[in-house]
Amino acid sequence: MRMVDIIEKKRDGKELSTEEIQFFVKGYTEGTIPDYQAASLLMAIYFQDMTERERTDLTMAMVESGDTIDLSPIQGIKCDKHSTGGVGDKVTICLSPMVAACGVPVAKMSGRGLGHTGGTIDKLESIPGFKVELTSEQFIKQVNDIKMAVVSQSGNLTPADKKIYALRDVTGTVPSIPLIASSIMSKKIASGADAIVLDVKVGEGAFMKTVEEAEELAHAMVKIGNRVGRKTIAILSDMSQPLGYAVGNALEVKEAIDVLKGHGPEDVKELCLTLGSQMVLLSGKAQSIEEARKKLEEVLNNGKALETFKAFVASQGGDPSITEHPDLLPQAKYKVDVPAKEAGYIKKIIANEIGVAAMLLGAGRETKDSEIDLSVGIVLNKKVGDHVEKGESLATIHSNREDIEDIKKKIYSNINITNEIIETPSLIKGIITE
Amino acid sequence: MRMVDIIEKKRDGKELSTEEIQFFVKGYTEGTIPDYQAASLLMAIYFQDMTERERTDLTMAMVESGDTIDLSPIQGIKCDKHSTGGVGDKVTICLSPMVAACGVPVAKMSGRGLGHTGGTIDKLESIPGFKVELTSEQFIKQVNDIKMAVVSQSGNLTPADKKIYALRDVTGTVPSIPLIASSIMSKKIASGADAIVLDVKVGEGAFMKTVEEAEELAHAMVKIGNRVGRKTIAILSDMSQPLGYAVGNALEVKEAIDVLKGHGPEDVKELCLTLGSQMVLLSGKAQSIEEARKKLEEVLNNGKALETFKAFVASQGGDPSITEHPDLLPQAKYKVDVPAKEAGYIKKIIANEIGVAAMLLGAGRETKDSEIDLSVGIVLNKKVGDHVEKGESLATIHSNREDIEDIKKKIYSNINITNEIIETPSLIKGIITE
Repeated sequence: MRMVDIIEKKRDGKELSTEEIQFFVKGYTEGTIPDYQAASLLMAIYFQDMTERERTDLTMAMVESGDTIDLSPIQGIKCDKHSTGGVGDKVTICLSPMVAACGVPVAKMSGRGLGHTGGTIDKLESIPGFKVELTSEQFIKQVNDIKMAVVSQSGNLTPADKKIYALRDVTGTVPSIPLIASSIMSKKIASGADAIVLDVKVGEGAFMKTVEEAEELAHAMVKIGNRVGRKTIAILSDMSQPLGYAVGNALEVKEAIDVLKGHGPEDVKELCLTLGSQMVLLSGKAQSIEEARKKLEEVLNNGKALETFKAFVASQGGDPSITEHPDLLPQAKYKVDVPAKEAGYIKKIIANEIGVAAMLLGAGRETKDSEIDLSVGIVLNKKVGDHVEKGESLATIHSNREDIEDIKKKIYSNINITNEIIETPSLIKGIITE
Repeated sequence: MRMVDIIEKKRDGKELSTEEIQFFVKGYTEGTIPDYQAASLLMAIYFQDMTERERTDLTMAMVESGDTIDLSPIQGIKCDKHSTGGVGDKVTICLSPMVAACGVPVAKMSGRGLGHTGGTIDKLESIPGFKVELTSEQFIKQVNDIKMAVVSQSGNLTPADKKIYALRDVTGTVPSIPLIASSIMSKKIASGADAIVLDVKVGEGAFMKTVEEAEELAHAMVKIGNRVGRKTIAILSDMSQPLGYAVGNALEVKEAIDVLKGHGPEDVKELCLTLGSQMVLLSGKAQSIEEARKKLEEVLNNGKALETFKAFVASQGGDPSITEHPDLLPQAKYKVDVPAKEAGYIKKIIANEIGVAAMLLGAGRETKDSEIDLSVGIVLNKKVGDHVEKGESLATIHSNREDIEDIKKKIYSNINITNEIIETPSLIKGIITE
């Protein structure tokens, strides 16, 4: 088999065989196929797409390129959740204890972030004492005991995906549905879950700008999952503005705790209930979506979700009293309000730019080696559709530097106010089951 | 400027600026842009094509990547000829003395071959004593004195093209009109000619299989040439069967000499007259195509073309008496006829496969470092449309090895005989002037 023949076949719009896809992924991972041939195949895939079968083969070849996690010592149907990424997305932190409290085992490996704020693992590290590393035995025991553990990704999972992703980033081949779908699904499958719920973000703050694009990606991923025997479902959710109010690591943990207490932003809570219902249903802990949702509302109302969160924090060495005393979380030195310059209705909150503002404060990594300041960020005080009086606070900046004129300017130019009434955007844009 | 932005721009079907094209060619030649980014851009160009302006900029950026030849010390309008390559193409060897005898200065740099037979330089080396290297001063003096010199390419011409071509070869990006056209034209322009006549081969034995494809390539090249002030014209010529009868280095030199003596295969002679008329006209040595053709016929008939060839051979150290004694050229040990197994009309002679047969005898290079056997090859005794009796010779194999069963087999399976009358294919398929 010659790589150049595989490139030409795909270039000419033909379907690659399983063996050809495996030859490419294995050879590229091992270094016998050079970057330039991989780059040229990826660009050919960008233009010629892949069939469902090819996408599935690509996914599984990437899974097989490295270690896979065996979750079979954990009782029950393990369901994982994955978000395609947005600004202010703290869902994993509140959703996991909610579904765990319903009896769904949550054995989650999570990553650090490169972007506006940290990843789930960075956010959890803002809890004093919290350890993100456990041995396999501790991990499995904890999930069996208290139904939930979240650890930092370890082991050599999907090295092919890592190598291919790095190449896509510099060769203009990132925005390709078959490549995005196989990248995400390979990581989820290698992580060992039996069922997968995907949160595909849609809107200006997300990678997929339109519902049509998001639907296409969601279908692609759901089909791969189902073809390899992992029950998979996708929810399309709005990312035209940040999710919730808080953008920043400790700030987001605090907001997630609010949700677990039955308060917190309506959109975060609603997204947790929507995603959680699917997880509870897929894990066989309810017979219908309605029943699943009812169970989740119960564990929020009766405090069981919060209890599970506290047990999880304590079990991983963290201080569970943060739930009563959120000021134990890292605090920024300065808290500065940004007053509205005019009265009106909030028309737009450009999620990406609010994210960039948080990153400029130190909440995110500009490069892989940047240090994160867990205490800083931005807390919105208004969301799209809200009315605001002149002088009322649009957002509060949590900063450790005194001069924040650049951040204020960014907030003003990315929160648009109009005098016409604006409808609150709908949160859930669709459910994709096949 | 970032290479990834250039890749994405072309991927999205937008026109690259002159600066962007120069940035790519310069950076890639110097090694600051890696192979994988170049590969991905080339595949994007394969799918999205380039405008005339982009093609011209790419050509000139490749010209500027290395040395260029200054032919200004040579008097007159210098006209070069280039063939896109086929089997049995010995045109340069007979055409050059023909036009030189009409007063057109022929200052030709030629290459060695990788393929079925050697290149023009390899073929000329079959002449005893012939030197393919001259100093610039000798080269220019010889053209001024006797109107003709053919030397091996020296200097660092179009290094960008060499590097890009090598990459295209292994990344499935060879068959792209903008890339083929700019590659050929950059070499011709760097070689310093004022006017260029292109021989674009069409048919099963050529890179361009259909007249439509060949026309597209011809237009692309002619437009580039004319945009940069080099008068350029293209002839489309048949390559559905080998050109002439001889395929092999010394064998082709002998056939070229036959043409200069006023004999030789009709198709080789006709192609020389057609290409030559354009060269004579472009160089201002005739006022019309008809006059140019008449002059060429004259120099064939009155022996001036042959005289020019002999002077050229002598001036480069070769033995001009080969024209009277062609057996001074390298001779193969065995000459074996391949008799027709049935009577009929020749329907097809698959040019590529006859070329491969010659290569298997040693006439061509399988790899860059292969040694060529200048004496061997195949001489057809019939061409498409000819009648053949059973037992009559289809071809003569010139070999230095005794066992040639594989070659015989190849010839039998690639010369098709039918009992229906077959028309001789037309040689000239078109003339492209803009």
